[in-house]
Amino acid sequence: MALIVQKYGGTSVGSVERIQNVARRVAKFKARGHQVVVVVSAISGETNRLIALAKEIQSHPNPRELDVLVATGEQASIALLAMALMDLGIRAKSYTGAQVRIVTDNAFTKARILRIDEENIRADLDAGSVVVVAGFQGVDEKGNITTLGRGGSDTTGVALAAALKADECQIYTDVDGVYTTDPRIVPEARRLKTITFEEMLEMASLGSKVLQIRAVEFAGKYKVKLRVLSSFEERGEGTLITFEEDINMENPIISGIAFNRDEAKITVLGVPDRPGIAHQILETVAAANIDVDMIIQNVGADGATDFTFTVHRNDYANVLKRLKQAQGKIGAREINGDERTAKVSVVGVGMRSHAGIASTMFRTLAGEGINIQMISTSEIKISVVIDEKYLELAVRVLHKAFDLEQAG
Amino acid sequence: MALIVQKYGGTSVGSVERIQNVARRVAKFKARGHQVVVVVSAISGETNRLIALAKEIQSHPNPRELDVLVATGEQASIALLAMALMDLGIRAKSYTGAQVRIVTDNAFTKARILRIDEENIRADLDAGSVVVVAGFQGVDEKGNITTLGRGGSDTTGVALAAALKADECQIYTDVDGVYTTDPRIVPEARRLKTITFEEMLEMASLGSKVLQIRAVEFAGKYKVKLRVLSSFEERGEGTLITFEEDINMENPIISGIAFNRDEAKITVLGVPDRPGIAHQILETVAAANIDVDMIIQNVGADGATDFTFTVHRNDYANVLKRLKQAQGKIGAREINGDERTAKVSVVGVGMRSHAGIASTMFRTLAGEGINIQMISTSEIKISVVIDEKYLELAVRVLHKAFDLEQAG
Repeated sequence: MALIVQKYGGTSVGSVERIQNVARRVAKFKARGHQVVVVVSAISGETNRLIALAKEIQSHPNPRELDVLVATGEQASIALLAMALMDLGIRAKSYTGAQVRIVTDNAFTKARILRIDEENIRADLDAGSVVVVAGFQGVDEKGNITTLGRGGSDTTGVALAAALKADECQIYTDVDGVYTTDPRIVPEARRLKTITFEEMLEMASLGSKVLQIRAVEFAGKYKVKLRVLSSFEERGEGTLITFEEDINMENPIISGIAFNRDEAKITVLGVPDRPGIAHQILETVAAANIDVDMIIQNVGADGATDFTFTVHRNDYANVLKRLKQAQGKIGAREINGDERTAKVSVVGVGMRSHAGIASTMFRTLAGEGINIQMISTSEIKISVVIDEKYLELAVRVLHKAFDLEQAG
Repeated sequence: MALIVQKYGGTSVGSVERIQNVARRVAKFKARGHQVVVVVSAISGETNRLIALAKEIQSHPNPRELDVLVATGEQASIALLAMALMDLGIRAKSYTGAQVRIVTDNAFTKARILRIDEENIRADLDAGSVVVVAGFQGVDEKGNITTLGRGGSDTTGVALAAALKADECQIYTDVDGVYTTDPRIVPEARRLKTITFEEMLEMASLGSKVLQIRAVEFAGKYKVKLRVLSSFEERGEGTLITFEEDINMENPIISGIAFNRDEAKITVLGVPDRPGIAHQILETVAAANIDVDMIIQNVGADGATDFTFTVHRNDYANVLKRLKQAQGKIGAREINGDERTAKVSVVGVGMRSHAGIASTMFRTLAGEGINIQMISTSEIKISVVIDEKYLELAVRVLHKAFDLEQAG
């Protein structure tokens, strides 16, 4: 008998029929003698509907009240799923975040989990019930309702698995696991049986939106055994996210190719090469609440330097305008950019002990005439920024160069 | 400076525009220096939508989970109203039933309020906030979400007013007060400036669905000053529900004519006149969870008796079938009924000290050729059952006979 935490997203509970499907799947695990905790999101579209309604009333909705409002989405889901389980003759009980209590800080709309009081849930499990918990939400020390921000239901699942010392946390999504790259671009892409946490973090943050990055971090920190599975297909083992010590030496050097299409690149040319200049440039961007992704600075020969960074494409025009306004203050010779760039990364813990990954990557891209505009590396990934029109080609040739094709 | 509890029903918050209207009305009271607690229902139609959804999943939804589900309706309303108030520059804070805490028993879907922890609300009021509380819902001692049953938001308002020792509890509805009878039947019907609690109880239970009967009982028990007002018209004082000791001697003898259209009458003829026979008949009805309204038994001359009662018209066929099945056991000679009857009542505390009310009522009906099928009286009302086709006529002539017309 194992204790399993299962998390189902909004599309998995998107209709009465789908809720009943989830109930049947949970019933199978229960029938095998497992204890099951189910975490559910709001019905797909509901959170967006509620936020739109709030904005009709207050253009910038008060964060505390917005959390009270959107928390109703998961509250409806847990009640409906508990009913669907009971309809199959299974004992079930729902919990809101506040009822559990999943205690968070008071950063409304983006709260962080501080601790989970798991005693009541454990008592229900021991009494034979399936416990259905609202994802995405919690309660602060004063009893205010909070939410964890987008994708927070994954985090709820992992945090509950950690608190309950569950044997496995299963995240059911609309894909059947983590792939070497996006199968829509490379049909030969292969589902990974395992991936390490570090690789998953890179894959998640680089655009493979299978798992919420905070959930992955949480799982890594508390050593939660995490598995990504399809909520629509019965078969398949999904992808298990492993700890590095579990890896055997046969593991591939490179696990996958991640990419991010919607990047834009901005270069600030000929700025004085003195302390504080990077801060001065990024401050201008940060003041508009815009996230910067990759940052590169090269020392120039003439006492001036060039500074390049990437932002989401939607922010490009705004950033360019702000920087041009600040150009005099920064002392830059020129500011330019490219709205249509993309980032491609090869990811793998194996590259730590294998030289030549970068050289294979750059040679492969050069062989197709793809110019590399920026390069950034970490211990387990190499990212390059290229012209967006070459993105699919780059992903395909790199997938092949690193032998990631479907076995057989 | 007064402390006012205002309750707005589902139609009052039925759209973004209406929510903003409620906020503006609350703002006016705040501007006059009052402390205001607002109780809101779910947006009209939402509770029914949620119940229908639940029934798609479980034909008899689990009561605990049903309460978790429907409680989301008011939770959405409080957040939206708090935002609308803030949008007018007014400090506001929402509370779910569980956050207040409005502690109830654990009779899910029809819970009763045991106590209210009002300290946090009071602190917010003293700090200058408008407090917005979810009607209809509470929490049991174990932290389970409960609901008070249909119309429970009125009860929440009155209970909060009692707990906070509010100066007045204002119930905003889609009518502008309590009338001498339904103005759709008698255009000359007059809005009552005051009505006593006892009269209001009779009016509420007899079919004037302005106020939830439990809320009226609660107000009477805790001496809450209760006023019914229109949520759509700015002007008007509504109707104040008073305690009998406040009445001056000028009060009218009769306050109003109540009626109930959807009654059906069933008569069990020639049953043995022995102890337990009434119980035996009603047990057959109660076993099907059907409410009985008026009950009359007349001793017959020949050692047998006739037993007559009324039920809601929707239950008529079912009751008749069950009684005929039990006819042998009961020992009745005959069972018959009338599906289309109606009940008309004259209500007024004044009738205690005035003889002749019954005789005026019966003479008036006889004058129109309306046959009285059943009579039932209490200290402050006289009810008769008549053929439904005479209902409007009966209400009109009684309204005139007791001089209830619009003054002027």
